[in-house]
Parts: sequence; structure tokens; C-alpha cells
Amino acid sequence: MSSLEPLFAELAPIGRDAGTGGYRRFALTPEDATLREWFASAAAARGLEVTLDRAGNQWAWWGDPDERPGVAVGSHLDSVPDGGAFDGPLGVISSLLAVGALRAEGFTPTRPIGVVHFGDEEGARFGVACAGSRMITGALAADRALALRDADGTTMADAMHAAGRSAEAVGRDVETLNRVGCFVELHVEQGRGLVHRDAAVGVGSAIWPHGRWRFEIEGAADHAGTTPLDDRHDAMLGYAAAVLLARSLAVKHGVLATCGKVFVEPNGVNAIPSRVTGWLDARGAEPAAVQALIGEFGANVALIEESWTDRTVFDTLLTGHLVELLGGAPVLETGAGHDAGILAAAGIPTGMLFVLNPTGVSHSPDEHAELDDCRAGVAALTTVLRGLTT
Amino acid sequence: MSSLEPLFAELAPIGRDAGTGGYRRFALTPEDATLREWFASAAAARGLEVTLDRAGNQWAWWGDPDERPGVAVGSHLDSVPDGGAFDGPLGVISSLLAVGALRAEGFTPTRPIGVVHFGDEEGARFGVACAGSRMITGALAADRALALRDADGTTMADAMHAAGRSAEAVGRDVETLNRVGCFVELHVEQGRGLVHRDAAVGVGSAIWPHGRWRFEIEGAADHAGTTPLDDRHDAMLGYAAAVLLARSLAVKHGVLATCGKVFVEPNGVNAIPSRVTGWLDARGAEPAAVQALIGEFGANVALIEESWTDRTVFDTLLTGHLVELLGGAPVLETGAGHDAGILAAAGIPTGMLFVLNPTGVSHSPDEHAELDDCRAGVAALTTVLRGLTT
Repeated sequence: MSSLEPLFAELAPIGRDAGTGGYRRFALTPEDATLREWFASAAAARGLEVTLDRAGNQWAWWGDPDERPGVAVGSHLDSVPDGGAFDGPLGVISSLLAVGALRAEGFTPTRPIGVVHFGDEEGARFGVACAGSRMITGALAADRALALRDADGTTMADAMHAAGRSAEAVGRDVETLNRVGCFVELHVEQGRGLVHRDAAVGVGSAIWPHGRWRFEIEGAADHAGTTPLDDRHDAMLGYAAAVLLARSLAVKHGVLATCGKVFVEPNGVNAIPSRVTGWLDARGAEPAAVQALIGEFGANVALIEESWTDRTVFDTLLTGHLVELLGGAPVLETGAGHDAGILAAAGIPTGMLFVLNPTGVSHSPDEHAELDDCRAGVAALTTVLRGLTT
Repeated sequence: MSSLEPLFAELAPIGRDAGTGGYRRFALTPEDATLREWFASAAAARGLEVTLDRAGNQWAWWGDPDERPGVAVGSHLDSVPDGGAFDGPLGVISSLLAVGALRAEGFTPTRPIGVVHFGDEEGARFGVACAGSRMITGALAADRALALRDADGTTMADAMHAAGRSAEAVGRDVETLNRVGCFVELHVEQGRGLVHRDAAVGVGSAIWPHGRWRFEIEGAADHAGTTPLDDRHDAMLGYAAAVLLARSLAVKHGVLATCGKVFVEPNGVNAIPSRVTGWLDARGAEPAAVQALIGEFGANVALIEESWTDRTVFDTLLTGHLVELLGGAPVLETGAGHDAGILAAAGIPTGMLFVLNPTGVSHSPDEHAELDDCRAGVAALTTVLRGLTT
């Protein structure tokens, strides 16, 4: 099997922030374009034919999936702000290497094999996670997607045009979905589940219900030096209370809640904030518990839902088959959303493989996976691909 | 006297945000350059000779202040983010109109009259208020000033070079200070003190002690969906608690405290914040009360002082003279910092005039002053200039 290191080395400089050492690979930016060129080139080098779906996701096929639906593997290449090197790219690289390994051993698959590069999985720029997969399944309607705006006010439609892509084509893509007989996404784990199970590779069985909401605290802009406390409407005070409320409700309901992003207007040292926009990320094993938190929070601070994904259970037959092919790999659930969850919700038989993350840290420049564990992941994905196409 | 409206109309489009209607006039930007060109042109039109001091502040003199120190009037033209039209510009416009009125009536001053346009009074870009006046008095050392960075990491030195200005000249400017026999700054009031006194114009007697501090809450970047609550180090929680602490300490000590600006890393919806940088603005009538708040806050969250200005009492002789010239105008203190306070602290006899602000709102697009009250301000400043140079 060809080696992981050269592929990681090719990706290493793309979108890396010299200050933090983290990645800033956002949708429809020059970095995104470079990642797409890299994928097209790496796929072509393995004899795969690259096509774009209606949302611009890249599919590299070995064989013709229009004759018979194939087995797709893959992941994403974009990042959160200051993300790590593995979240996304490990799955794409491992998929390319698994295909290369099968080619090298002279294997002839009984049905097509595809490697997909989904765009905009993190939603860092336009606020909707898994936008690439949501657009082709129809979970994100075209008109809503194209009207999404980034922090500078640019719509996704305009960003697509600026990137030389077609916004007019966006929509549910039945032709692409029909090509995918099943989908397996390999991803670095973003917790320490495999550490506790002492395994390099595991099989994902479910994605927790999760969502993101926006809330706006209104205040009145006034001078910080001349407005008496009693005359103030300071939006930052309401925001601070909301952050602490989210945490206390998370403890109460046994779920996760995070206020990771905030936007303050006018954001001046001596100006009382006139408006604070906050975001709430909430997840948990049980949908009812997450919704209970959202209900209580929303009774205090009005919430605008940006996305909601119910509990996703992966195809139990496929999951069982993956465990068997991997000789009894451990099974785990995850609180992180993935494109695999979107395809599963659209009715495509879907599974996941996770690679050990020794610290559990992700969405951080400190995210790490050992090379040996990544190699075990490539080997597992190769075994899975061979097993599913024999 | 020539009219206020044309001058406000000339300034109206410069740096105005079409969305908020507020002004974004920051130091060493293209907007700043446009404002400087406007000032040079408006001063020349009134027969004033414009010179730059070592920090780049613009001084427009009528007569030669190297022969005999003169009477300086003026203010600033920059703004906070989404500031109003009057905070700063009203003082510069009124000064130019007062000079024009004296010219028009054939008045011959017994000593020089100068109009100054101070740069970077709000400190919106580099974080230090009154940077222009602080640099020439030495209250802000040149090496510290030039190393200040904006949100993009650009130093003030680099920004000066980019604006075609000299950074090498920055330093305490004794030659300029020696030209200023006394200084009077007219400014829109930023509270409702004159509303309560039922007067269009008042005389400022003191500036409250005030300062700004920075604090950094450290966390650990982790995935919002996979990190258990007990394993988190979420910097936003510490920030929220700090915001509420500042408010409760302000109530306790009878002072003002504001957390108006925040910077979150990485600021992603599904990323636990690894670092939150907050700013605290604190002021009050009594220095001891402000310092008590800072001491208690600092015992919980380490503070880095960005600026501190002790209580500034304006020259009592000059203040008394201003009241007398204006026929018994009311006297008031202010919680807002001004370049006048910096010059006063440097030993220059200094006074202030305030113009009625009907709502007290400032640092906001909604800041407003009635035209008749602004005209009363110009008339008062004309009277003061005539009285001080007769």
C-alpha cells in the first residue's frame, strides 16, 4: 500500500495559519479551490474518473455507477477555524490509499467503487454543517442554501459564482444518490471512546441528535463612560447570562451545550453593546433530553433553529457486516455530525469507521492521531472495500 | 457666521456604514486620509496654515505660535465602530466656524489662534484612546505606541507607513506643546447633564478617572459534540462569569464598568472556545472606587492595563473665565475621556465646552444634537476665542 505521509505532506500547507498552526479551510475560498485541485489530481493518479454532483461535491469513480450502484467511501477536506489536520482529510486520504491498495494487488471489484470529497462539512463559513451532502439529499433546500450569508454578508450563491461554480444547478441530486449503493466514511474519532476500548479502529453505530441555534440579545448603543448603570440596556449582560444558562441546563438534562461563537455590535471597548448574536450547539444521546434543554433555554432567550438532525442509527446490516469484516471491531456512538449521517437519513445504507484519537482533542490545532493507527485505518478500509465488492 | 450645515454635509458620507447608518472612521485608514484632506482644505479656506506635529495631528494656525503661545481649540474626527456624527466633528467644525466668524467681523487677535484635529481619539483600531494627544505629551511612549497592533495584527508603525506618514518622528513634542498657551475643546455632551440644567452649552470642570483593561480567559479547544462537560475547559464560561462580575462590582462600588468588546478563538459554533479576550472599561467620580473595582475583579481574573487616566480637573482659572465669558454657563463633570484631559494632565491650561445632547446617547448612530444648540455652541466658542485673545 502506498504511504500516508506524502499525501498528508501535500495537504499540510493548504490553509494553515502560521500563528496558531491550525487550519482555516472554508467553503468556496481559494484554499477550497486548492483542495479540490489536489483531490482531482490525486484521484486521477489512481485511475479514477472525477465528476461533480449538483452541489459541487467531487466523486471519483472506479467503474461506472450508472450501470450498477457502487460502494462509496470518502469524507471532507474543509475545517473549522483553527481545526486539526485529521478531521476530514484522514478519511479522504485513507479512501484514496485503499483504492490504490486494491489496484496494486490486482483486485477486480464486482461493483463500482467511488471516493467522494464532500464540500463544506463544517459549515464554518455559512453556518450550516454538512452543507454539501445536505444539498444533494434535499435536507437543505436550494433556495435556503444559496441565500445563506457569511460574516461579510456574501451569499453562498455569490460565493459559488466567485469560485467559478454553478449555483443554478444546486438541488436534490437523485442521479448522484442512485449511484451510491452504500457509503462508508472513515473519520478520526473526536472523543476517547476507542482509547477506553483499547482499539485502533472502531465501527460507528449511531450519531447523536444534534443541532445549532442562533439567538440575538438586543441592547442600546450608548457611551460606556456617561450612561448610568440604571439607564443601560447592555446586550453583553444578557449574553453572559445565556451562556451560563446553557451550561446549567446541559448539566440538568445530561446533554452537551456549547456557546462557541459570538458576534458583538459595535464591539468597541467604550461602547455599550447594542446587539449580541450568540450560537448554541446542543447534542446528546437522547433527542428528548436535547429538546428539553432547547425548550427551557428558548423560554428565556428566543432561539432561531439553524439546523437540527435527529438521532441517526446507521444501517444495522451494514454495521454488522463491517464488524465482521474487521474481526470483531468495537462499536461506538458519536456526538459529532458527519456527512455519513446525512446520507443515512436520506435512506442510503451507511456506516462509519473511526480511527483512535489518543487525546480525544479535535477542532483544534492539537488534534492528533498516531501514524500506526492511521495505517490500521487504511488497512481496515481496504478490507471493507474488498469485502463489499467481492 | 458661516453655517454648520455645509460642513456637516461634507463630512456626512465619509466612513458611513450604509447598513447601520453609523460611522466607522478609524485611525490610519483611507477614511482617515479623507478626513485629513478635508480638514486641511477647510482650514486653508479660512486662511489658516496647517502643520503636523510629531504624531501627525493637524494644527491650523492663525498667527505664529512660535512668537507667542496661542489659544488652541479643536477636537477629533475619528469614531468608535458605528459612532455618531457629532462626537468629535462638532468640535472641529465649531472651531473652524468660530475662527471664520472672528475673521468675518474683522477681529484682530492679540495672540495666535489655532485649530487642532487630533488623530485616533477613540482608539477604536489600536486600543489606546487619545493616542494622538498621548503621543505628543509623552503619556504614550513612542515605542509602545508604534508596537500597538490592530485586530489584523498590523502595528501602528506599519499602518503609519502604509498611510504615507512618518513613524520615526513619533515622540513627545515639546515644540508643539510650547505653542499652546491654553486649549479649549468643544464636544457634544455624552450624557444628559445639560438636559437637567436646561442649558444649550455648559463648561466642563473635570473628567472622571477612567481606564481600560484587557483580560484573557484560557480554555482548551475541543469538539463541542464529543467532549463531556466534565472534561471541558470552556473559555466562554469564564468570560460570561467575568462580565457579570464586572457589573455586580460596578453596582457595589457606585462606578461604571462595561465589557463592550470581546474576541473569541476559534469562534466556531461547534468548537469549544480555547481563548476569550475581553476588555473592561471602568470609570467613576472617585479614583479610589474605580481602583477598588479593578482590585476585586483582578483578584478573580488577571487584568492587563491598557490605559489609565486619573481624575483630571481642568484649570480652575480658565474654567472660571469661560463661565464668566458665557454669562454664567452651568458647570459639569464628565465620565468620557477627551484629548483635553490629556493636555490638562500635561500641564497645559485646558477647559471644555459641552453642547446639549437631548437623549444623552453617544457612541451610536442615534447620537443627536439639535442644530440650534450646535449654533449656540459655535457662538459660545466664538465668544470664548474673542475673550481669550482680546
